[in-house]
Amino acid sequence: MPDLRPVLFVVGLMITALGVIMFIPMAVGLAYNDDSWNAFATSGFITSLLGSIMALASYAPKANLRARGAFLLTTFSWIALSFFAALPLLIASIGLDVTDALFEAVSGITTTGATVMTGLDDAPKAILIWRAILQWIGGIGIIVTAMAILPMLNIGGMQLFRMESSDMGEKILPKAASLAAAIGMIYLLLTIACAVGYGLVGMNAFDAIAHAMTTIATGGYSTSDASLGGFMDDGADLVAIAFMLAGALPFGVYLLSWQRNFKPAFSDPQMRGFLLIVTLLIAVITYYLWSNSIETGSHALRLSAFNVVSIITGTGFATADYNLWGPFAVSAFFVFMFIGGCAGSTACSIKIFRYQVAFEALRAYLFKMPRHHAVVTMRYGGKVLPNTVVYSVMGFFFLFFTCFAITAIILSMLGLDAITAWSGAASAIANVGPGLGDIIGPAGTYQSLPDSAKWVLMLSMIVGRLEIITALVLLTPSFWRA
Amino acid sequence: MPDLRPVLFVVGLMITALGVIMFIPMAVGLAYNDDSWNAFATSGFITSLLGSIMALASYAPKANLRARGAFLLTTFSWIALSFFAALPLLIASIGLDVTDALFEAVSGITTTGATVMTGLDDAPKAILIWRAILQWIGGIGIIVTAMAILPMLNIGGMQLFRMESSDMGEKILPKAASLAAAIGMIYLLLTIACAVGYGLVGMNAFDAIAHAMTTIATGGYSTSDASLGGFMDDGADLVAIAFMLAGALPFGVYLLSWQRNFKPAFSDPQMRGFLLIVTLLIAVITYYLWSNSIETGSHALRLSAFNVVSIITGTGFATADYNLWGPFAVSAFFVFMFIGGCAGSTACSIKIFRYQVAFEALRAYLFKMPRHHAVVTMRYGGKVLPNTVVYSVMGFFFLFFTCFAITAIILSMLGLDAITAWSGAASAIANVGPGLGDIIGPAGTYQSLPDSAKWVLMLSMIVGRLEIITALVLLTPSFWRA
Repeated sequence: MPDLRPVLFVVGLMITALGVIMFIPMAVGLAYNDDSWNAFATSGFITSLLGSIMALASYAPKANLRARGAFLLTTFSWIALSFFAALPLLIASIGLDVTDALFEAVSGITTTGATVMTGLDDAPKAILIWRAILQWIGGIGIIVTAMAILPMLNIGGMQLFRMESSDMGEKILPKAASLAAAIGMIYLLLTIACAVGYGLVGMNAFDAIAHAMTTIATGGYSTSDASLGGFMDDGADLVAIAFMLAGALPFGVYLLSWQRNFKPAFSDPQMRGFLLIVTLLIAVITYYLWSNSIETGSHALRLSAFNVVSIITGTGFATADYNLWGPFAVSAFFVFMFIGGCAGSTACSIKIFRYQVAFEALRAYLFKMPRHHAVVTMRYGGKVLPNTVVYSVMGFFFLFFTCFAITAIILSMLGLDAITAWSGAASAIANVGPGLGDIIGPAGTYQSLPDSAKWVLMLSMIVGRLEIITALVLLTPSFWRA
Repeated sequence: MPDLRPVLFVVGLMITALGVIMFIPMAVGLAYNDDSWNAFATSGFITSLLGSIMALASYAPKANLRARGAFLLTTFSWIALSFFAALPLLIASIGLDVTDALFEAVSGITTTGATVMTGLDDAPKAILIWRAILQWIGGIGIIVTAMAILPMLNIGGMQLFRMESSDMGEKILPKAASLAAAIGMIYLLLTIACAVGYGLVGMNAFDAIAHAMTTIATGGYSTSDASLGGFMDDGADLVAIAFMLAGALPFGVYLLSWQRNFKPAFSDPQMRGFLLIVTLLIAVITYYLWSNSIETGSHALRLSAFNVVSIITGTGFATADYNLWGPFAVSAFFVFMFIGGCAGSTACSIKIFRYQVAFEALRAYLFKMPRHHAVVTMRYGGKVLPNTVVYSVMGFFFLFFTCFAITAIILSMLGLDAITAWSGAASAIANVGPGLGDIIGPAGTYQSLPDSAKWVLMLSMIVGRLEIITALVLLTPSFWRA
């Protein structure tokens, strides 16, 4: 049994912080004169109180957070924060029951962006800003987790991104804290730049800030039922394309560029691979729209660029219902969900580097096939690729698709039709947001699904956000043995 | 550039043999007095002549077949035999054009069983027996390939099944020949037993023999548009269940049991795993049919057992349209296509041992996760599982799903709806036969698909049958370099 105190202590501090943050939507509610400020005042008080008690009760200055504690911390913090984040959504009388409130919170904090709410355009501003804040917190949270914690735990090949100075042991927390500060500054600056961008194309201050938070977090919550489509006439989609991409690029590279120079940005294999594949897929979809006369001219390019970037980065904003673009578009957008952005970004899903590693391994494998005694060296970004990384990556693919299939099977067992079940499962585990089909597609919501399906999707979002293995390891009996 | 002569020589002999075999349907045609005997006489003459010329022209007594030659032989023989097998289907005037004739031949010889023909009940007997013969040849062909050739080429973890005496080098062909003789005898006996079984439940001799050949080959071609459903009243489905399972069990274990005793049959991990999973899934589907009142009593059990076994073994016979059993059944049967039988059987798809290896690797991985310095030994069937096998298996999963997704995407690009494209791709690469939905589901055929889609499916069937890698390695430039 690992020492739980440092885990509970850190999670307690996080909950306290979340409680304090709830006073922001409270202030927004007061400023806009809506009744929901009350829900945030109450929740903020309860949350920060319970968080402080938890932190104080488990304070143990000499306890250390080691590998098993880091696993527990990662999964437990995400779950605990979701519960408290749902509190104001439940208390405010906006028609959400426990399941719906929790669904909205989990979908927010995992930056998925699947929603059960309609009537967003008239919803209380406090609620809208809270949804944006949840995604914003989730976005920075996952970057720090991916850069400071997962590489040390060897999760799914993330050890590739272990920094020179990293090693296992007592230093996990101070390291995470100093990294979080530097990354947080970059994250904040990008958010401000995005909000200014939205402002320049005519969004009002509130919409600009809310959308900036969910754009850079590649989350996808909007303040309008029409999603970003409602702001497209003024060019908000172009701003969004730039900052969804910015959110899906590796923040470690930003940090290095900031501290030294721009060289790492041009030589980073993930960044190059990601931008290449995005460009290619935008071209394919644009050509498809043109050649089938579905959309024409530069409008086709714009719709293609926005929706491809939105799905690949896992944001989930929509400016068009690509369900209506014919069978190829449906299949293509289904596959796009499995691509993902760069490791160490706010984007989710399988991620580009895993495909790059898999294809390099495949190349070596096929080369070796007819000549057994050949020695082949695998490389990634000019460096030798250790077998253990390849092995972790391959295991990740297997686990990801297994979890995806199990989720889809359970959803169809609960009565969802094939398209809704399979696309919903993909969207949840890849933290995208919308699925395919009429119900949960870009023009629908998750509102009408049975509660049981919502719970399955929540679990899948959390497991997907934590790169599967981080959560799964907690379910093995051997983890809990001394 | 590998020495092509031994490859061309062996393929030439195979084509000659195929030509000679064509005189069987010719005789059947004459006996049943149908006009199509002519097509088989012509094709048999052409095929055996061209095959002989090819063999003689490439005869080189001192040339040896080494690793690269074995890769070429495997892929090239499957393609060449398909072309010649299509000849009589094209020449006989039964309404098949070049694409359709080739589709039917490829689907037969790969034991897929997807058909473009309707009106089977009134079709010429010579054509019907030819379709059955193709699957029967394909079945024994894949067992010999899987036992004698693939393990030596390290294909997707098949090296697990390398026999004690195997090693690379000159002995590939004599070994394959002696193995083929022993396995062929067992295969023939099982086919006779199956035909007798069908005869006992009231099938006429022709239907019994034709179905016996496609049952043991887990192929699935029938002599009736209603598939085996038309013979269900008499209990033909129960005979089919037994022999589809027999065809999907490892023939190496039969051989050992025959030569020594029955011990290996009870301790073989593949066999145990396969029978366990089949039993479990039959129970799940039966329970689902009961609890949703879709079918009742023992009839539900019988339909469930037949259709689950038919899909998992990749046979593709149908006694019910499980499309009508609701969303869970559709999703479940979709996933069943990816399971497959045992290695060294006539069954196809991913196969049980790969899942067993993957889960053992997963267990070791999750155990090691929180304790980096632990040493974990992976085992399969009591023996230590080398890393290279795990690596090959993981690579196989990645490749299989990548090829599957690419096939599905191309099919939807050709205008197929999502269900047809994705289930058709799965059915082709896993060599199952029917897909899902109204068009290519158990109650439909592939007739109405565009020619382009049929070509994509043919390619996918061959790639799937050859365990992906065998075919893919030929596409790498490095294969052809000296």
